[in-house]
Amino acid sequence: MMLVNGQPHDSVSALDRGLSYGDGLFETIRFVHGRAPLWERHMQRLMAGCERLRMPLPDPQLLWREAWRLGHGLGHAIVRITVTRGLGERGYALPIPGTATRIVAAFPGPAIAASAYVDGIRVHRCRATLADQPLLAGIKHLNRLEQVLARAEWSDPAIAEGLVCDRHGQVISATAANLFAVLGGAIVTPAVDRCGVAGVARAAMLERFPDCQVRDLPLDACLAASELFLSSSIRGILPVQAVDDTVYAPGPVARAMQQHWRDLGFPMEQA
Amino acid sequence: MMLVNGQPHDSVSALDRGLSYGDGLFETIRFVHGRAPLWERHMQRLMAGCERLRMPLPDPQLLWREAWRLGHGLGHAIVRITVTRGLGERGYALPIPGTATRIVAAFPGPAIAASAYVDGIRVHRCRATLADQPLLAGIKHLNRLEQVLARAEWSDPAIAEGLVCDRHGQVISATAANLFAVLGGAIVTPAVDRCGVAGVARAAMLERFPDCQVRDLPLDACLAASELFLSSSIRGILPVQAVDDTVYAPGPVARAMQQHWRDLGFPMEQA
Repeated sequence: MMLVNGQPHDSVSALDRGLSYGDGLFETIRFVHGRAPLWERHMQRLMAGCERLRMPLPDPQLLWREAWRLGHGLGHAIVRITVTRGLGERGYALPIPGTATRIVAAFPGPAIAASAYVDGIRVHRCRATLADQPLLAGIKHLNRLEQVLARAEWSDPAIAEGLVCDRHGQVISATAANLFAVLGGAIVTPAVDRCGVAGVARAAMLERFPDCQVRDLPLDACLAASELFLSSSIRGILPVQAVDDTVYAPGPVARAMQQHWRDLGFPMEQA
Repeated sequence: MMLVNGQPHDSVSALDRGLSYGDGLFETIRFVHGRAPLWERHMQRLMAGCERLRMPLPDPQLLWREAWRLGHGLGHAIVRITVTRGLGERGYALPIPGTATRIVAAFPGPAIAASAYVDGIRVHRCRATLADQPLLAGIKHLNRLEQVLARAEWSDPAIAEGLVCDRHGQVISATAANLFAVLGGAIVTPAVDRCGVAGVARAAMLERFPDCQVRDLPLDACLAASELFLSSSIRGILPVQAVDDTVYAPGPVARAMQQHWRDLGFPMEQA
């Protein structure tokens, strides 16, 4: 089910700048029985992204109506909202006047084994590294080839995610989730001002756990953590069971964040 | 005029990974009365990009037939070929089996004032810098937000291009062209193995002028060049008249490369 600029439609112009240059932004939003507990945070990030890319701001009420229309009947759903700079002449110059393209699409809710929440997931340490680009860091833009290449490094279905570093050996995130580590009792999540995405589940956890430190996280320190877990607005809080051959056990901080995830209104399926 | 997977069509699926993630490549190819003098080089770069991104290789004969069908009747034309990884499930993992999307679109030939070739063009020095990402450097992928943001820095129509550096103060290219400088008699063009695109006009010039040095080019040295000019497979060899307030005169190396551009079969319009 999909709406393009409000109309039931499943295609966009082949000259859309979203396709030509990845010139746009997206959000993937989890709906639970017609509610989207992190909606406001998704909208805040989307608007911040539009400002960064100098795109017109979409109307959040309109997006809500369209997302709810597609998502509310599904029980559990993931709604992807994509906004692009719309049609453009050939060339990078901003089109004048710009007319954005708005795509709202609904997908079934996530299928996550209970064991992922209870025992954790296995993680591959990616060889691909993320580039430093403060102009694009934090926002959820459509230029995602780094993530595609990192995710392409493994096909073993027993491995659920990949640990991705920058070029200085600092851990940044998973391919599609943020990361938290507990180091000597302190909760740490990597800064995302040079690369990475400022996840909305991460933001919700930072608000609830204000002692969490947002800073650089060298790979060695990360691998030596007493707890390691991921946050995703779709999948919630996922303990890391192993990064390649280094094993971890879910700990009390991950459990507390899982509880907060439940309190926000997200079930943890069979967990 | 446009063909999508060989059919006259002007749209693609809103779930195409080219749109979702910028997961694909493109070439913009200049046609002159049914000929595309740099065709082979465009195909070489496209195939290299497909290998880098682990995408299936398109059939160059098929691409030629489609590009020629759209471009040969126009006299002067620009044909853009876009190939994407095609439809995918939600998520970064490579789709199995992958079916690429192929878009071939024709546009009118470039409109360039004769003075651009004779006297040169004015260039803005961009504040935006390019990120180091060797995984993506050199190829012409669809993740072009850096170029969009650099190009958005000016709207004065008297300024034709922007000079873009990396984060280490090395000049890389213009926003949509490569760059050559003459320094103490030596011809230099920046390396594009950390960022930037390996232009096909640049490749043609490197073959014809094998003494040209491919290396780092610090901004200070670049601005102190005795000649500065750009190369583009669409626009050819364009002398730089000024970078902001620093002025240049077209010199003998730019004129020799313009002659080679003509010899390849490209007119320089009214020049």
